[in-house]
Amino acid sequence: MTLKAIQQTVRQQVDEALSGVISTLPDHAPELKAAMHYALTAGGKRMRPLLVHLTGNMLDLPRTDQLTISMAIECIHAYSLVHDDLPAMDDDDLRRGQPTCHIKFSEATAILAGDALQTLAFSILAEQPLSAFGDKQRAKLIGSLARASGYLGMCGGQAIDLASTGNLIDVDQLKQLHRLKTGALLTACVDMTCRASESIAPESHTLLCRYAELIGLAFQVQDDILDLTASTETLGKPSGSDVALGKNTFPSLLGLDTAREELAKLHQQALQALDGLPYNTDYLVAFTDLMVNRDH
Amino acid sequence: MTLKAIQQTVRQQVDEALSGVISTLPDHAPELKAAMHYALTAGGKRMRPLLVHLTGNMLDLPRTDQLTISMAIECIHAYSLVHDDLPAMDDDDLRRGQPTCHIKFSEATAILAGDALQTLAFSILAEQPLSAFGDKQRAKLIGSLARASGYLGMCGGQAIDLASTGNLIDVDQLKQLHRLKTGALLTACVDMTCRASESIAPESHTLLCRYAELIGLAFQVQDDILDLTASTETLGKPSGSDVALGKNTFPSLLGLDTAREELAKLHQQALQALDGLPYNTDYLVAFTDLMVNRDH
Repeated sequence: MTLKAIQQTVRQQVDEALSGVISTLPDHAPELKAAMHYALTAGGKRMRPLLVHLTGNMLDLPRTDQLTISMAIECIHAYSLVHDDLPAMDDDDLRRGQPTCHIKFSEATAILAGDALQTLAFSILAEQPLSAFGDKQRAKLIGSLARASGYLGMCGGQAIDLASTGNLIDVDQLKQLHRLKTGALLTACVDMTCRASESIAPESHTLLCRYAELIGLAFQVQDDILDLTASTETLGKPSGSDVALGKNTFPSLLGLDTAREELAKLHQQALQALDGLPYNTDYLVAFTDLMVNRDH
Repeated sequence: MTLKAIQQTVRQQVDEALSGVISTLPDHAPELKAAMHYALTAGGKRMRPLLVHLTGNMLDLPRTDQLTISMAIECIHAYSLVHDDLPAMDDDDLRRGQPTCHIKFSEATAILAGDALQTLAFSILAEQPLSAFGDKQRAKLIGSLARASGYLGMCGGQAIDLASTGNLIDVDQLKQLHRLKTGALLTACVDMTCRASESIAPESHTLLCRYAELIGLAFQVQDDILDLTASTETLGKPSGSDVALGKNTFPSLLGLDTAREELAKLHQQALQALDGLPYNTDYLVAFTDLMVNRDH
């Protein structure tokens, strides 16, 4: 099966499962429910569920566990986009070519939808089906997701991002920003999948998390490059918006050529991490290429 | 020991424990860390931890478990206040006589601080110490807190509140609003304490949750009455602000006298629920009086 075909299947399964969870909610707050559904299903590429799936299949993790982990991750991811787009934050009107949540609904509803989606992530991890072994690991999975999402991860990274916008920082600080803001959640995909897996050796767990950190950073370097080089149409959001907002980016700090070299280096290091694993990593190699060579 | 003395001890323990958790966070986002600390320790009465403590002592639940549950609850409570006060929500500048989080810091930092405090609640429940039995119940405690906090509870109630502000609703709708917006989290205090307790009978668990629902509603009726009758100085926020905002309140729908009768009825029903328990409920009876007869 090609990676593209797998991605399509995973995307469809996750979309259906998330729509299913929202549709079972009662209708006491229809606007909030609609905003949660909108934010969760607004055309995401589902790269994180794909990473969970490829890692999970490699480790023989049951599909049930993969799906529960993926749904929780996507709730956190969706909430973070809704809040990042708010007027007080990045003030974005478009996301993937569609109106952002606060434009489509209202600012108050977008704040609440983000809040409720974060809660839903933990609700899913606490209550959705997991295999017998995964079930014993629930609290550890929740701890892993919480670390990746809060002050120690994504929220902390977003705060550094806000504080550094309009101020020059160095490359190490920019790397730390992205390690927290986007890397932590990607790493949590792999960390949770490893924790739910009965058989994995600690060294493999460490290598896989290292791999995820590297592709997380590579993903961001590529994001910065695309913001500078791709068209608004391809991106689904205005190109050049990072520069317009006064954000530090890898190309702005390093120049475009050196940023591309950095991307190639991270790509190689990610592949090296995979090389150390006692598994067939063909799909993860292909996933790495997909993350690094994407055009939007 | 008087209830007042217990309350003081609980308050001090929870304040110290929460400050301790924040102080162990690294300093990568100092503004966010300061805002989280500010929101968590801004002079709350810690009624929820007191309820956990009184219920927990009655059920012989170890102090460790009480403290972990209380800390998580207070993180959710603090986050909800920060987000409710935002300009797009209730737009409040004062809370307990102090500047609200977005006034003291910034709107972006307040949004993020709320987000990170919600995450911290689940992080605490997933990773802070619990007794051997409590540890086995972690996922259930997390599930209970998530239900009470998200669309099915607090966030859903806040959405109904926003949608109904400026529109007349009936008393049943107002009750549902408050059952979700504030009642669910108070009930979660008791529900989590019962779930962590090894010995409680299902009937007692049900009665205690019923008790919590009733005092949650009584608390809100009293809140509405105080907003109308107490001074700004006593409240620490502008009196009459509910009416100014076009909120539906129990006195606005029922009249002040009938609202007071409703409060007395809820008080009696709460005491009846306690009567059915095979425990010494003296402290919970005193707690009920404290909730109903408070003057701010």
